[in-house]
Amino acid sequence: MTSPDTEYASLNEFYRVAWDQLGRGVADAKHPARTPTLATISANGFPTQRTVVLRAADRLASQVEIHTDSLTPKVEELRENNKAALHVWIRKSMLQLRLGVCFDVLTGLEVADRWNAVPPTSRISYGTQPVPGKAITGPFDYEKPAEQARFAVLKGHVQQIEVLYLGTKHQRALYKRIDDWSGQWISP
Amino acid sequence: MTSPDTEYASLNEFYRVAWDQLGRGVADAKHPARTPTLATISANGFPTQRTVVLRAADRLASQVEIHTDSLTPKVEELRENNKAALHVWIRKSMLQLRLGVCFDVLTGLEVADRWNAVPPTSRISYGTQPVPGKAITGPFDYEKPAEQARFAVLKGHVQQIEVLYLGTKHQRALYKRIDDWSGQWISP
Repeated sequence: MTSPDTEYASLNEFYRVAWDQLGRGVADAKHPARTPTLATISANGFPTQRTVVLRAADRLASQVEIHTDSLTPKVEELRENNKAALHVWIRKSMLQLRLGVCFDVLTGLEVADRWNAVPPTSRISYGTQPVPGKAITGPFDYEKPAEQARFAVLKGHVQQIEVLYLGTKHQRALYKRIDDWSGQWISP
Repeated sequence: MTSPDTEYASLNEFYRVAWDQLGRGVADAKHPARTPTLATISANGFPTQRTVVLRAADRLASQVEIHTDSLTPKVEELRENNKAALHVWIRKSMLQLRLGVCFDVLTGLEVADRWNAVPPTSRISYGTQPVPGKAITGPFDYEKPAEQARFAVLKGHVQQIEVLYLGTKHQRALYKRIDDWSGQWISP
């Protein structure tokens, strides 16, 4: 457990804590890291954000994974500009995680194994008609068939992670792939 | 209270619900809308996100307000590109709010009234030395003096609001300033 008096002694420990939290999000549907906020950049120049579900977090490969319908605006935005961000605020641990991430969009045979692992009741998240974001006349003028061809895996290559701990004494550090994740304390 | 079977009958009602939630965030420190995620766009082309505190939400003026240290990277980013976004996920109400917002950065005499209303114990959020985000040697090599000259108000002019309700039957609508907030149901 984290108390407000917790202090993180080393950059390495602080980095491990960040990935531990992401790992817990993947494993535990109730953990705040399960549902990060994904930011992308839209064609009109505004950042756009939405809650997503974190499906995988691999510290050694510095990769994360999200599943989505391939026809959603966020996929269109990532195909245009793959620079994105993930944000998690874990109130209980007083930790904010900010990730800069480049996403690849994978579909079709490449992700057939993941599709097979999606529970049938969850497959209706992939295939909404009309396509998500399109205008409809009444609020319920849509259907949710399951459609494997619309299943996409967003594979994220983490470029940097910033960790902020809001204990009694704040701590903040920035880790970059380009520095092999060695990390740097920064002013909070 | 919201039950999963709640249905929002009209675009007007759904819009009012969204602003009601923002208003509750301003009034209630424990409401999820108190701490939206603010996304801006950084100089290196990545969106960046952080939790902020919502200080005001004015439906009639379509404005929101956030307070910050004027020397933080987010202010630098907003001065370069004022297109930003706010995101709130309210689990209890199963509502996601997504706002596209253009921010003005106000400082000095213009915001002296707001500074005077900031409790003395909270004023240390404005003035950290070194400037937030700058490299420091050890994790605690910083100080937090209160500095009125660094107090900034981010005044947000809301351009659009998208509301998503994840009840038994999903509902989603998009409201734009340019359409005088009349709104449009969209596929969820």
